[in-house]
Amino acid sequence: MTDFHALTANPAYEKLVSLARQPFDLSQKDVLNSKRLSSYVSYSQGWQFFYGTQRVDDAVLDALQELADESRVITNFQAMKAGEVINRIEGYESEERMVLHTASRDIWGNPAHPAASTQAAVEFDKLADFLARLASGNITNAAGKTFTDMITVGIGGSDLGPRALYLALAACRIPARQVHFISNVDPDDAAAVLKNLDLSRTLVNVVSKSGSTLETLTNEELVRSAFRRAGLEPQNHFIAVTGKGSPMDDPARYLRSFYMFDYIGGRYSATSMVGAVMLGFALGNNALHEILRGAHDIDLAAEEPDIRRNIPLLMAMLGIWNHTFLKHETLAVLPYSQALIRFTAHLQQCDMESNGKSIDRQGNKLTWQSGPIIWGEPGTNGQHAFYQLLHQGTTIVPVEFIGFRHSQYQNDLTIKGTTSQDKLLANLLAQSLAMAGGRENDNPNRCFAGNRPNSILLADRLTPYAMGALLAIYETKIVMQGFVWNINSFDQEGVQLGKVLANEIIAHMAARHKDKNYQGADGDPGWLMLKESKC
Amino acid sequence: MTDFHALTANPAYEKLVSLARQPFDLSQKDVLNSKRLSSYVSYSQGWQFFYGTQRVDDAVLDALQELADESRVITNFQAMKAGEVINRIEGYESEERMVLHTASRDIWGNPAHPAASTQAAVEFDKLADFLARLASGNITNAAGKTFTDMITVGIGGSDLGPRALYLALAACRIPARQVHFISNVDPDDAAAVLKNLDLSRTLVNVVSKSGSTLETLTNEELVRSAFRRAGLEPQNHFIAVTGKGSPMDDPARYLRSFYMFDYIGGRYSATSMVGAVMLGFALGNNALHEILRGAHDIDLAAEEPDIRRNIPLLMAMLGIWNHTFLKHETLAVLPYSQALIRFTAHLQQCDMESNGKSIDRQGNKLTWQSGPIIWGEPGTNGQHAFYQLLHQGTTIVPVEFIGFRHSQYQNDLTIKGTTSQDKLLANLLAQSLAMAGGRENDNPNRCFAGNRPNSILLADRLTPYAMGALLAIYETKIVMQGFVWNINSFDQEGVQLGKVLANEIIAHMAARHKDKNYQGADGDPGWLMLKESKC
Repeated sequence: MTDFHALTANPAYEKLVSLARQPFDLSQKDVLNSKRLSSYVSYSQGWQFFYGTQRVDDAVLDALQELADESRVITNFQAMKAGEVINRIEGYESEERMVLHTASRDIWGNPAHPAASTQAAVEFDKLADFLARLASGNITNAAGKTFTDMITVGIGGSDLGPRALYLALAACRIPARQVHFISNVDPDDAAAVLKNLDLSRTLVNVVSKSGSTLETLTNEELVRSAFRRAGLEPQNHFIAVTGKGSPMDDPARYLRSFYMFDYIGGRYSATSMVGAVMLGFALGNNALHEILRGAHDIDLAAEEPDIRRNIPLLMAMLGIWNHTFLKHETLAVLPYSQALIRFTAHLQQCDMESNGKSIDRQGNKLTWQSGPIIWGEPGTNGQHAFYQLLHQGTTIVPVEFIGFRHSQYQNDLTIKGTTSQDKLLANLLAQSLAMAGGRENDNPNRCFAGNRPNSILLADRLTPYAMGALLAIYETKIVMQGFVWNINSFDQEGVQLGKVLANEIIAHMAARHKDKNYQGADGDPGWLMLKESKC
Repeated sequence: MTDFHALTANPAYEKLVSLARQPFDLSQKDVLNSKRLSSYVSYSQGWQFFYGTQRVDDAVLDALQELADESRVITNFQAMKAGEVINRIEGYESEERMVLHTASRDIWGNPAHPAASTQAAVEFDKLADFLARLASGNITNAAGKTFTDMITVGIGGSDLGPRALYLALAACRIPARQVHFISNVDPDDAAAVLKNLDLSRTLVNVVSKSGSTLETLTNEELVRSAFRRAGLEPQNHFIAVTGKGSPMDDPARYLRSFYMFDYIGGRYSATSMVGAVMLGFALGNNALHEILRGAHDIDLAAEEPDIRRNIPLLMAMLGIWNHTFLKHETLAVLPYSQALIRFTAHLQQCDMESNGKSIDRQGNKLTWQSGPIIWGEPGTNGQHAFYQLLHQGTTIVPVEFIGFRHSQYQNDLTIKGTTSQDKLLANLLAQSLAMAGGRENDNPNRCFAGNRPNSILLADRLTPYAMGALLAIYETKIVMQGFVWNINSFDQEGVQLGKVLANEIIAHMAARHKDKNYQGADGDPGWLMLKESKC
């Protein structure tokens, strides 16, 4: 059974407020010593999490443990996985759904929610069959040739997570298979993708849970018309990933249809069919299952109640310490891996859409800060860009670094006794220590105040398993923070008003295309701004 | 003559502090009316700037005008363009340089700094000659074939700005010419680029002002060895863009060398040879000069002292209002154009490296907030991602939208009476109005508090001229904010400590590669964290 209550109702809350008045000073001489750094480390599923460079000591960690316990994070997490309806606001109309993205990878026996796991397994079996037929030449294009390319059409959760995973693992791609993405309603986006493709050998993977997402339907129609112009039958190339019974659930129009379910939110759907169809095509069924296994292993490990032995829970609690108690508004996620170039963008969605809320689960206005702003770019590019502000700006930005001991391609050049991967990793560690410790200088412009809290997630190599685990670490962190902040991390009412207003403006535009003299409603501000340029 | 002094010394400062206690309430009924929205607009070089959705009224705008005047923004800007040494901290060792990125496009007569403009013109003439020879077949590869591809090797300012411009204008590319980028020291980055290229028809454009940037030299060596393995002579393919006399200034090793000068900072160098060689190759010399002309026209227009008639100055002052007076830590830049996908990343560097400072021009610790955190992604993708927090989060994020009336490719599909571009623009306007005005609802989870300040930059189409103007609008905004905050926006001492520590760690790594038993200095924390995984 879940237990959700106000953050401030937990006895640990006041304790942490008090501790936050004098947070641990990382800039003290010799404080970043080997004893501290090697004891503030946690391990799980091939990942190491170093947090000695956070502004914490044992007193803070103990209080964060109490807060996690008092917030009943672990039992709430277990109840979520078992299918309790936790996507809701008490006493108000809300989505009233279960939250079962964990079931999408809970297919290895002993499932937390058997029915959902069975539904997942059915789809994965259909997908394995489809992939095998593609590989064997049982399914080909009209000319009998294999499919080499896939266009994925989707937006938001149907785009960011899958795209981030594809780019992360492109090094393990099946040779001669490539994936392309169309997400934006911007027509230039689709045009740029279609320009260089042999459509006759291209599959199109259209992803929309509701089957009614404006951008996705618009782009699907745009791509369908390109196929027809090329003399190709869309239904021999197009695949649907959608909810059962949605307007897109029309197998006659698609080569294959795969299903997603209302208990998996878009931003948590990368390991469901939403990501799986594309990843299976690109990487093969075995690599896809490695991703699932990595994610599932974290889902299990995350039931550990000791924050020092549970990476997602520890990251959640440290994030709350930095954001709610130390009052830092943002969090930079900085992967030292070019392959993770879109992972931060995925987290931006997953985290900010989940926890960017102002009311609690009982409909009350929050009196504490909920989700932070998530941003970042891969290092070392970032070092040559925005790190100036991270080190010396007037705003303190907590950082989560992500790194790997070995590169993916491994065709690395040794210069002056070290490889590029060595240099990359050295830079990551150096930045972590510099931000935390700082350094004094007689020239005020060369002073580093330090006390920029940060942590490092480190694994041996970015494999499908490691990527699955990394994804689940962050998904779980976000969910657990929502539990502590007592918010519903699973709805997104905040995106509705923009949609309503956009439809009003679109109606004005359509009226004007019909009638050039149409001037719109008197004083309609949106319409006014559209008038022709006066420059 | 420049005049730099403390922000708090300006009489308008206290006036603005007082006004900020009760900022204009955008959520009042009918306040976002046509009168307000159509009077709070500014025009320049094809761009319109709508700011009726900012939390300002005439009293605030007048006070911001006073602050701009008292900060002597325009005379300082003119002095910068005329070559005064403003990259400095008074009384302390500092770079002591002129700041003349404006001269890199001041090549149309009557220059503000004749000597720098002449230096720029010499390089542009060399480049025009080189581009003409490539086009005519006077310069080819060893087999007599034309060059089809270019790899640009650079990082930070030598990468972000040029890359953002290339992606913005890829629609206007010379057919059959493509550009690829290697920037990260991550070896996977280079491997992914090299994998699919015909090196025999590829030019390599190596960009480093100092000629000693670790990542760039490492990547250059990696690419040179790939050329040698392919039996190609690198000096027939490689182009250098570097400072005169730098370690890279060795014409024997390069097909061509182009120069950049110490008075142009990396993050302001996109319109110098740093961006120009690649953009000239990709777009042709005429389009390159259109970019320059757009930027130069803004540099001239930005001398207007009336903030209501000067877009960069107005954006600078509104940014200071939001950040320093209304205390919003971040700024989201959200372009409704997929082509601007990397423009925000460029601004992240240009802005945060410039204004992420904690001491003033006299070496005193700042008592006010300097540069904000810049982040963002193209819409409407963002709408399906992080906009939830923008509308309903506990943190308020000011937004700068960027949009266009027409698409670049123009092969747009009309569905239900409107084109995709119409829908894109409608979404932009709807978001602006929703964030500003908000909307009440009996369901607290569907309430929008509004008062999220934002503005819109709108142009007819993303052309080379419009892109040059947009780039200069932001460069100038950033420079002008630095003047008001009384900081040196042109150095980057904050990146030094990380470099020093990274080199120490790299030395440990090299020692270990030589001697497997090497254990590093006792207690060295960076080294410790590198030990093998214990998972």
